[in-house]
Amino acid sequence: MAREFNDVAATLQSIRYNRGSLHLLDQRKLPLETTYLEIRDSTDGWNAIQDMVVRGAPAIAIAAALSLAVEVFNLDGFNGSAGEAVSFLQNKLEYLVSSRPTAVNLSDAAGKLKEVVSNAAATTSEGRSVFQAFIEAAEVMLGDDVASNRAIGSYGASCIQQQTGKQKLSVLTHCNTGSLATAGYGTALGVIRALHSAGVLERAYCTETRPFNQGSRLTAYELVHEKIPATLIADSAAAALMKAGSVDAVVVGADRVASNGDTANKIGTYSVALSAKFHNVPFYVAAPLTSVDLSLSSGQEIVIEERSPKELLNARGGLGEQVAASGISVWNPAFDVTPASLISGIITEKGVITKTSADDAFDIKAFVQKTG
Amino acid sequence: MAREFNDVAATLQSIRYNRGSLHLLDQRKLPLETTYLEIRDSTDGWNAIQDMVVRGAPAIAIAAALSLAVEVFNLDGFNGSAGEAVSFLQNKLEYLVSSRPTAVNLSDAAGKLKEVVSNAAATTSEGRSVFQAFIEAAEVMLGDDVASNRAIGSYGASCIQQQTGKQKLSVLTHCNTGSLATAGYGTALGVIRALHSAGVLERAYCTETRPFNQGSRLTAYELVHEKIPATLIADSAAAALMKAGSVDAVVVGADRVASNGDTANKIGTYSVALSAKFHNVPFYVAAPLTSVDLSLSSGQEIVIEERSPKELLNARGGLGEQVAASGISVWNPAFDVTPASLISGIITEKGVITKTSADDAFDIKAFVQKTG
Repeated sequence: MAREFNDVAATLQSIRYNRGSLHLLDQRKLPLETTYLEIRDSTDGWNAIQDMVVRGAPAIAIAAALSLAVEVFNLDGFNGSAGEAVSFLQNKLEYLVSSRPTAVNLSDAAGKLKEVVSNAAATTSEGRSVFQAFIEAAEVMLGDDVASNRAIGSYGASCIQQQTGKQKLSVLTHCNTGSLATAGYGTALGVIRALHSAGVLERAYCTETRPFNQGSRLTAYELVHEKIPATLIADSAAAALMKAGSVDAVVVGADRVASNGDTANKIGTYSVALSAKFHNVPFYVAAPLTSVDLSLSSGQEIVIEERSPKELLNARGGLGEQVAASGISVWNPAFDVTPASLISGIITEKGVITKTSADDAFDIKAFVQKTG
Repeated sequence: MAREFNDVAATLQSIRYNRGSLHLLDQRKLPLETTYLEIRDSTDGWNAIQDMVVRGAPAIAIAAALSLAVEVFNLDGFNGSAGEAVSFLQNKLEYLVSSRPTAVNLSDAAGKLKEVVSNAAATTSEGRSVFQAFIEAAEVMLGDDVASNRAIGSYGASCIQQQTGKQKLSVLTHCNTGSLATAGYGTALGVIRALHSAGVLERAYCTETRPFNQGSRLTAYELVHEKIPATLIADSAAAALMKAGSVDAVVVGADRVASNGDTANKIGTYSVALSAKFHNVPFYVAAPLTSVDLSLSSGQEIVIEERSPKELLNARGGLGEQVAASGISVWNPAFDVTPASLISGIITEKGVITKTSADDAFDIKAFVQKTG
């Protein structure tokens, strides 16, 4: 019988899955249209990733795995051996990775699933049993991501309530880190959801998040969808908002956290962190421990990718009409790095990493060892 | 014979004036089209201001005065008395003020011109002589604004060169303060022009300036037009750019400067100032002394106007297609206030106001008295 993912259903779903059936919210049409696309197999999955129907590193990896899970669940005519099932799945996984070759989460997930498949084949001769093991592993990935986000939300909400000591508080976030970027619930936006559920959220503020407008298009969409009191601001208005005393805490996501706590995240995060520091507003990073890269000693080792100038020159992320003057050069970094010194805490699914009082620094390695 | 304004011609002209003839660069069509509209009389002037052909407080005031100067210069059939000329001009000036009733510069300029007209009538009985006095006064306003901006540019360039001690330097600016916002040359952008003319400008960086994109549309247009090496960034990328060591100084304009130096300017200025402070990048305000309001003891007395939510919800400053999620609230302040503590100096047409070493504060009143 199909397993239901009711915990996902409680919030906006970018991934609608029941065993044998997968629908993805078409994010290209947001915020104007809410349409789900049916994904019947890995080819549909590949196209959905390639065409940006689904975005956000964890969401992409899980959508890919589930598209293949749906495909093999519905392969009625298959009666092959375990070895045949393994080679079928491994080929399809490699094909799925080719939809976004630079997405680390996607290739990591494919690697783990290949291992699951090999291990399963060692204990059975039946191809269908290998498929079954794969389906279950893909479902566990989905369930784990949502559970991890819910834990982040819960730890983050408690920590921020405690830190601010307020009955009602307002939180600013940057970019999109919600149900539309993860398998469900979200990381930084999960913390805001948890504060709202607990009845302590006065208001969420989301930045527009130039130049791709993930804030005004996606985060605003999620907040409106869930009836969370929310206000959109220009990125450049964050400092003035804090000066007005309207922000009790900032929570953002992370693309990568170095072992000292330096955090790479969407361009503009660093600027918000500087404003928060100046106004004594606590600044939190919310991310699963998989975002921590202990091989990086600091943020200086993180290479910042530059994106197309078109995102600033034209409307609609570069696809629309010309906005800027012809002939102007553009610097369009995808990310910036916020130093650990500006970060109050790193909210993970295992708890909040805070600084050791001895040297005012994060000891993430010790936290990982203790909680691992 | 028509007086030529060759000093304006040296840079981009938003106002093209020769005695008896006025053309305004149609800023609604920028940056895609460079078109001048002929302004034959005060009715044309009123429409141009109302329809945003011309923008920027000093530019509006001067365009209004010149539209009336052109009208009376070409009034061939007029043979009225001085009194009739006075009442003709005063009525027209009041009509022009009604094109933008909240523009302080415009009503100030109208007040001064009314005085000129009354004074002229006291020394002549000929209407045409009163017209002549008015025309000359309007031309002086144009010449004075450009001369004042050139002085700001010159003082600012020397000061920044001295402060940074560098042979080649890069400057970041925010919003548009150039020939398109003034009668010519510009204030903060005038400083960048002067640095470029002196051969010491490595690169100008301009922010997009959300939500109305004055930076990507207008400042970028001016910089490209004058072949000044220039790069456009998202507002939120300013901090990352400073961290990368690419900015030697910041220069911005001012809508209003309080007597302690607190400065109201386009939303986002405060955020750039905070980033500059953190990175030890000198931060300058460039503005004529008319922008200083000695009646305000500090920035706390400046009321911040809010603009239409549409500017964030839709493309093209609110006129274009929907971008943001339906139903989201918006906070869209027009300005923010940068405290004097974050400002290295205030560049005026009489010199640069710096802080007294005694109490690390600006004494603008003393500067005005000394130079007045």
